[in-house]
Amino acid sequence: MSKEKAMKYIEELGCLKTDMYNGDFLQTWDHPIDEIKAVFTIAQALEELYRANISCEVFTSSLAVSNFRDKSTRTRFSFAGASSLLGLDLLDMDESKTQVAHGETVRETANMISFLTEVLGIRDDLFLGYGHKYEKEVAEAVDAGYKEGVLPQRPAVINLQCDRDHPTQSLSDLIHLIKTFGGVEQLRGKKIAMTWAYSPAYGKPMSVPQGIIALMSRFGMDVALAHPEGYDLIPEIVDIAGKNARESGGTFAKVHSLEEAFKDADVVYPKSWAPVTVMERRTALLKKGKAGADEMEELEKECVANNDKYRNWECTEEMMKLTKDGKALYMHCLPADITDLNCEAGEVADSVFERYRIPTYKEAEHKLYVMAAMILLTRFEDAPDVLKGIVKRNTPRRSG
Amino acid sequence: MSKEKAMKYIEELGCLKTDMYNGDFLQTWDHPIDEIKAVFTIAQALEELYRANISCEVFTSSLAVSNFRDKSTRTRFSFAGASSLLGLDLLDMDESKTQVAHGETVRETANMISFLTEVLGIRDDLFLGYGHKYEKEVAEAVDAGYKEGVLPQRPAVINLQCDRDHPTQSLSDLIHLIKTFGGVEQLRGKKIAMTWAYSPAYGKPMSVPQGIIALMSRFGMDVALAHPEGYDLIPEIVDIAGKNARESGGTFAKVHSLEEAFKDADVVYPKSWAPVTVMERRTALLKKGKAGADEMEELEKECVANNDKYRNWECTEEMMKLTKDGKALYMHCLPADITDLNCEAGEVADSVFERYRIPTYKEAEHKLYVMAAMILLTRFEDAPDVLKGIVKRNTPRRSG
Amino acid sequence: MSKEKAMKYIEELGCLKTDMYNGDFLQTWDHPIDEIKAVFTIAQALEELYRANISCEVFTSSLAVSNFRDKSTRTRFSFAGASSLLGLDLLDMDESKTQVAHGETVRETANMISFLTEVLGIRDDLFLGYGHKYEKEVAEAVDAGYKEGVLPQRPAVINLQCDRDHPTQSLSDLIHLIKTFGGVEQLRGKKIAMTWAYSPAYGKPMSVPQGIIALMSRFGMDVALAHPEGYDLIPEIVDIAGKNARESGGTFAKVHSLEEAFKDADVVYPKSWAPVTVMERRTALLKKGKAGADEMEELEKECVANNDKYRNWECTEEMMKLTKDGKALYMHCLPADITDLNCEAGEVADSVFERYRIPTYKEAEHKLYVMAAMILLTRFEDAPDVLKGIVKRNTPRRSG
Repeated sequence: MSKEKAMKYIEELGCLKTDMYNGDFLQTWDHPIDEIKAVFTIAQALEELYRANISCEVFTSSLAVSNFRDKSTRTRFSFAGASSLLGLDLLDMDESKTQVAHGETVRETANMISFLTEVLGIRDDLFLGYGHKYEKEVAEAVDAGYKEGVLPQRPAVINLQCDRDHPTQSLSDLIHLIKTFGGVEQLRGKKIAMTWAYSPAYGKPMSVPQGIIALMSRFGMDVALAHPEGYDLIPEIVDIAGKNARESGGTFAKVHSLEEAFKDADVVYPKSWAPVTVMERRTALLKKGKAGADEMEELEKECVANNDKYRNWECTEEMMKLTKDGKALYMHCLPADITDLNCEAGEVADSVFERYRIPTYKEAEHKLYVMAAMILLTRFEDAPDVLKGIVKRNTPRRSG
Repeated sequence: MSKEKAMKYIEELGCLKTDMYNGDFLQTWDHPIDEIKAVFTIAQALEELYRANISCEVFTSSLAVSNFRDKSTRTRFSFAGASSLLGLDLLDMDESKTQVAHGETVRETANMISFLTEVLGIRDDLFLGYGHKYEKEVAEAVDAGYKEGVLPQRPAVINLQCDRDHPTQSLSDLIHLIKTFGGVEQLRGKKIAMTWAYSPAYGKPMSVPQGIIALMSRFGMDVALAHPEGYDLIPEIVDIAGKNARESGGTFAKVHSLEEAFKDADVVYPKSWAPVTVMERRTALLKKGKAGADEMEELEKECVANNDKYRNWECTEEMMKLTKDGKALYMHCLPADITDLNCEAGEVADSVFERYRIPTYKEAEHKLYVMAAMILLTRFEDAPDVLKGIVKRNTPRRSG
Repeated sequence: MSKEKAMKYIEELGCLKTDMYNGDFLQTWDHPIDEIKAVFTIAQALEELYRANISCEVFTSSLAVSNFRDKSTRTRFSFAGASSLLGLDLLDMDESKTQVAHGETVRETANMISFLTEVLGIRDDLFLGYGHKYEKEVAEAVDAGYKEGVLPQRPAVINLQCDRDHPTQSLSDLIHLIKTFGGVEQLRGKKIAMTWAYSPAYGKPMSVPQGIIALMSRFGMDVALAHPEGYDLIPEIVDIAGKNARESGGTFAKVHSLEEAFKDADVVYPKSWAPVTVMERRTALLKKGKAGADEMEELEKECVANNDKYRNWECTEEMMKLTKDGKALYMHCLPADITDLNCEAGEVADSVFERYRIPTYKEAEHKLYVMAAMILLTRFEDAPDVLKGIVKRNTPRRSG
């Protein structure tokens, strides 16, 4: 059953034109629509193959290297899962244990860790204006290293969240929508509300809302972005969302209240973030290190106080009633700030979250398969053919 | 030769009735005797298969996740060994690198780390009244996640030491006894002295002595427990040992001196621990964090001073002479406090330890196979059949 | 093409007499010339097999354990690569997470981590007079454990850099020379200048220069060692280099200026290190811990001030002009202190380094194959036969 489904997905790949071999996956908007479709189609095929107990190991004697410059649970385990699924040996580049501080250049380190490496997964989301830049620098370094004959293969750099995009998250979210509404074509005309929500914490990255508006606008959805005044996202990426909507036949609108965004929405994604102006100041202070600690504390106070003005930006039962038939799909990248569960006041009411808890867990599962799909597409000249080989070989994933 | 031995063990499994599939292994007393026997029988079979150079890899594309909430050498490497033996990719859940602190619930995290996970090994032995509870909470979370369709399989939670039991240790110790005395039936009527011993350290967990008295009392042994006044174990578990002894035809006695316990013993297991009353106070202070630091220092001083009164609780040559023919088997879970070797005064005299050093090392080896046996029994509907498949397949473990 | 080259290397092994099974690799001078040749020949064979997409996995269900007592990027990833190449599961022995501090003896820990272990890779380069000693102690412990029946196999201890030698580095460097000059025989009569160079840092280990002079002197090279007065290496190892040169028909000379060393050199290896007298004082202070912090700061100041006198010991374009045809091969183990790139004044001019940057990256690649070769030679009775088996089996390393 699962195997048949997998084969159907593999067939669908025949219609898609992709050119991802020896490349990277840094931002969804770097890729034409067919490449986006290839990622989510292969991800779904791999999910079915896993459930059909068919081994998807296509690598041996090869490394997957992760570099987390921020804490992570979900993404860390997803990347480990993707590596294990494909047979890659995972090695975490714990920068505290390396000599990176000793004056190594990014270019040099990138090569030194890549002699047997097929994929470098990087999370660098703390510093506005730097995360994406760093990932690009690594990608250029391994590209040069490969072309100069230093590296026997060209490792793909995969963005596990930067200051601009969080593509493995937004693509998992997209698969969740596809599965919920019964196909990517069913998303056309559906309204999704990507909104800010209150959190007692501050400094949450903007990559998720940016990733969501930039990706969902490509499938004819009506994307509504709402946040309190001053909580702006990076303008360039908001523009991309607008352009995408125009091209896909959807709409993109910035609205000014949670109510307006939720009104008749099919999907709501209420999530806290720190505005671009705060992130800019925060980045400058983080770079000062200890010298910036006092100012950082002040900034934090100021921001938490500012957040406090918008405590009513909460996804309550009342708000949910405003959505289409009162039954919009609630989404979250997790962990959520849940009022009365893990905080006094947060992004979402406990009863709303609890109703959608299991769906949000399932939403999270797709991420590892999205990563694996990106690896297959960047590391093989003909990924569909590799998948056909997996089905044909039909090796059981586990005994018994 | 080893292969034949392995096959004999596998045959013995035919007589045992077990129902462990999709379950956990948290405490030995949660399991009927046949399941205990299945664990140590499979563990021994796996040891023989390893030595016969037969690959026991039964998983691919699957994770084993460890979560050590306390330092560990032996258990860490045992769990890594068990994972490697069966073909699982190990991932340590280093809580300092995850977002657990950011308000994630146990239920959520347990699911997020388990999409490709077959086993979760947890050590949580510092907080009296909490370790076992935490492991159960994780087990319930993944059980619910599996039933709700979030997880494609139901990972087993394996207790790698909690506040109540240390089943992988006690089962390794049991295998050591079986091998020393020539069969589990030979243990009937043998006397084992589980005794407190002096250590300059304080705060050692009670899970080992509790695990030993609760397990060895199930095989008709005469179990003697001895400790200075005030060094009590958890009463409920002492009661379990008594009940087990009555049911198995053995005896269980609390005695009041090292001498009385050692008298005519076939086996001695002298080991330090902190009493339940201290562990209760310690847990309360640990939970206070920095605010409890001063009181913690005082508690430590008080306890070390109290320990000092019992410096004569040492496994000396003189004490050993009291045992059966002066030749009791000395056991320890390691590392031991060895007088004049790694401390001024400790649990055991250097000459006694040195005589049994190699046997205690061998005792430690069984642990990885015990863990692997628990994984096979919880993760396959028919573990004996999987073992037969391994023997039949007969793939060499290593070349050359 | 690569496969044919690999087979040629494997044939060459037929002429070499080695006796490395169940041994270690701690210092190149512990091994007769044939064993050194076997290492670099097998390393080159493995490189070709990797490029020919032939799987070299010869282990399953076995661990490689690393213990880095100092920071490391290159060596850490090389060891991970070697493990992955051969099918070993890597486990890093992070001493901060183990109970080593709790009074465990080296002998005990070495056994406890080795039940399923084929190789223990150790870096211990900080303490003069201790690193090599520690590695030997571990080797003796696992040797005893194997002979006493505790360990089912005898793990090899491989030196990943100690206070005396850095054999995986020097052998990678040797392969770089062999490839550059077209064969080991072509090294005869070539002049290599191993020289001190200025660095703003202090306390760099001596193992690289010691390893280089002791190894390159075995192949008939003319080895010139140069450093400012007072920057002596361990005298015993300098003597070994002299003896090696006499035996191999090469020469070994200590010269007193960078100019003299570079004059007509075919190869230059300018690299900073701290002199043996400083390392002795530093080791004593490191052992004092916090109590030695003030003195350590003073020592550092004194040494940096002393280094400052020799700022002219830099590998500049002018210096390079002194070498054979102005075209000597520049070598470095990386990371280098590059003037105007990662420091104000350093070991090498930016333009010189940039010209040799790609070659130094390639030089670094060999290290993982050197480690893998050492593992094969120490862990199999007949390593050439294992290689023949790999070629015959001809399993693709990756799909597609």
